Amino acid sequence: MNSFSSDMRTAVLVEFGKVVIYGVGLIGGSFALALKAARAVGEVVGFGRRPVVLARARELGVIDRAGAHLAQELADADLVLAATPVGQLPAVLEQIAPHIGAHTVVMDGGSTKEDVVRAAYAAFGGRIGQFVPAHPVAGTENSGVAAAKSDLFWCRKVVLTPLPENGAGSLERAKRAWRLCGAEVCELTPAQHDRVFAAVSHLPHLLAFALVRDLAERPDAPLFFDFAASGFRDFTRIAASHPEMWRDICLANRAALLREIDAYQKQLRDFKAALQENDGASLEQGFTVARRARRAWGEKTEDGAVVARPL
Amino acid sequence: MNSFSSDMRTAVLVEFGKVVIYGVGLIGGSFALALKAARAVGEVVGFGRRPVVLARARELGVIDRAGAHLAQELADADLVLAATPVGQLPAVLEQIAPHIGAHTVVMDGGSTKEDVVRAAYAAFGGRIGQFVPAHPVAGTENSGVAAAKSDLFWCRKVVLTPLPENGAGSLERAKRAWRLCGAEVCELTPAQHDRVFAAVSHLPHLLAFALVRDLAERPDAPLFFDFAASGFRDFTRIAASHPEMWRDICLANRAALLREIDAYQKQLRDFKAALQENDGASLEQGFTVARRARRAWGEKTEDGAVVARPL
Repeated sequence: MNSFSSDMRTAVLVEFGKVVIYGVGLIGGSFALALKAARAVGEVVGFGRRPVVLARARELGVIDRAGAHLAQELADADLVLAATPVGQLPAVLEQIAPHIGAHTVVMDGGSTKEDVVRAAYAAFGGRIGQFVPAHPVAGTENSGVAAAKSDLFWCRKVVLTPLPENGAGSLERAKRAWRLCGAEVCELTPAQHDRVFAAVSHLPHLLAFALVRDLAERPDAPLFFDFAASGFRDFTRIAASHPEMWRDICLANRAALLREIDAYQKQLRDFKAALQENDGASLEQGFTVARRARRAWGEKTEDGAVVARPL
Repeated sequence: MNSFSSDMRTAVLVEFGKVVIYGVGLIGGSFALALKAARAVGEVVGFGRRPVVLARARELGVIDRAGAHLAQELADADLVLAATPVGQLPAVLEQIAPHIGAHTVVMDGGSTKEDVVRAAYAAFGGRIGQFVPAHPVAGTENSGVAAAKSDLFWCRKVVLTPLPENGAGSLERAKRAWRLCGAEVCELTPAQHDRVFAAVSHLPHLLAFALVRDLAERPDAPLFFDFAASGFRDFTRIAASHPEMWRDICLANRAALLREIDAYQKQLRDFKAALQENDGASLEQGFTVARRARRAWGEKTEDGAVVARPL
């Protein structure tokens, strides 16, 4: 009787009987915690390079157990999230693809999409319809499973870049999973995605890294850091991000990022020329365009605090 | 009896009998409010270009009255703060200098110092010892008297760039005023000041303006802004700053800022070359230098939240 009613409850509430997370860091761990908080998952099994991370993830209640045999665990998995740094995704997808079950939906959590899609076609072959490319827009300068939290995706956008081969079933299950995490699901093509994020995310990271590095390598660096204040703090917050992760993202989205650097260099040369020519009108006009756009964006998004209402 | 004890109290508590604020915006208004909160001022008299701003400042209790005759008000002023945008400071100092009393100490609140010092020598002539150049490091992307608050300088640095002509008395009174506002007083030479702030403040503003302008002027700008998230928010917060004020600062600190732009362009070319050559090791190494420096700075300053303990 008890076992019957418990089974009934499970059948009603649990949308994903078994979820496999490959790479249990900030994104993978938060995805697991969010699905657990929504009571939408039966069991979460973790895989990854470092056993110590998986042990910690278990201690924290992020995963239910560390998996031992990938092939065995994937065969009856409902959902797989490959959430490693993007540089490792091709190899990880190669490992995953041969073993998935007929109903398994696989997603990645990478910040770039064209390269992931290329790797996915190579890895999945005829099963490519089961792979739905995903990018949860919810990174922070912190990383690792200890930073994972169940509300990381709450009110955040998740961009899916569906493939022509994705059936309605796979796509709907992917969307459902992210909505259960409290996210707003959007769709772009992989090329659109990479162009947009090169401009609004990858370039700003590169620019912030460049500024801090420029100061850090000076012989009198402490003098500069001593007088850095709140403007510097916010501008450079993302320069505290994970170097390996951002190396991978920059390389993965190289072509789009190089185009953005070119456009930005031109913009900077314009301001520099205005400064050299003491052309205050051009400077003020350029600053005004920027200020107006930034204020409008801030008002629309409550200064980025709430990007969307979930569900 | 009542009037006697009230006078006694005034004599004990009020360090500055009369303070004149020329330019009652965020900085000038906050200076007035902070001295009032410290019960260190007898009367605050405001001057400025726009009568409506002075009326508003009076309504808000920031100034006690708007001044009518500058010469008359300055003759017995203990302290004058010229807190207009830096572009207007030369003209303002010209207006102020001829009328100050023998014991008046004049400060500016400008974000650049070499140009202000040049203008001050021209304006004050033999009275230059009464002018103490000051830069309270406490701007925000908001401006105007409505944003003024008594704790704006609390735990913030105020950089003085004393002149050889400043007597100990003038300098001590300048320091005392800012410490009463809760600030930590530091000293630099004008040239040091301008070099440091070109790097940690003026350049980041220019870079943030450049990024937002680059996006705002694209035909498909909304697509980009739609997907901008928290990294973009913080990186570009300072791009919402006041265009006229920043035009003035950039022009006033042109030489140092141009040198910083050159250094930054070189840094950006380095990252771009690494990206073109698919040189992940160089990227990661550069990012690591930046991350380490940014984390160390963040820990030392509680991520910039508290720059110093006051008093």
